[in-house]
Amino acid sequence: MFASTPEPPYIAVIFTSLRSASEPEEYGTTAERMLELAQQQPGFLGVESARGSDRLGITVSYWKDEASITAWRHHLEHMEAQSNGRNRWYEKYILRICHVTRQSEHTAP
Amino acid sequence: MFASTPEPPYIAVIFTSLRSASEPEEYGTTAERMLELAQQQPGFLGVESARGSDRLGITVSYWKDEASITAWRHHLEHMEAQSNGRNRWYEKYILRICHVTRQSEHTAP
Repeated sequence: MFASTPEPPYIAVIFTSLRSASEPEEYGTTAERMLELAQQQPGFLGVESARGSDRLGITVSYWKDEASITAWRHHLEHMEAQSNGRNRWYEKYILRICHVTRQSEHTAP
Repeated sequence: MFASTPEPPYIAVIFTSLRSASEPEEYGTTAERMLELAQQQPGFLGVESARGSDRLGITVSYWKDEASITAWRHHLEHMEAQSNGRNRWYEKYILRICHVTRQSEHTAP
């Protein structure tokens, strides 16, 4: 559930999205496949994801550097998923690229 | 639901948390109050939040600069909420401070 990221600096990609009201079956399959594929990419550090009943979701993926997100962005199978995302699966999304400068963590006793 | 952030650069605070299995009533009240209070802070740009049925949530708040997040972090009422969060409301959380360098947005036609 939590991504075990290394000491900063590294990159975070924040993907905030509103799913369409319809729920095409391929969405779930593709989402799983993209997760599996992302994990195999060089520079992938982890991912965290949450979506509420209001259909708003936030997925944050963590990457070693800008080169690794550029390569993932241009991955052929991912590009096809991105196109489906734009055209069919999301009413709206915002993508933000960030440089993580520090982190802290707490676990209940 | 979406934060209308200005052109980067600005700061993102990614708060990934796992809620405790118990659901104390003050949690909801405090969460609402913190949102209301954050919105009144200088440098606050917006917030996005999602929590799934697995109790994992991601809240990303956006801020003008480091000074504004430092001030918010030390806000008295917020410090009390942070303490309750650590001791009672969350099994675990990770907080990441990031510098947003670019963003893009898509809205379905």
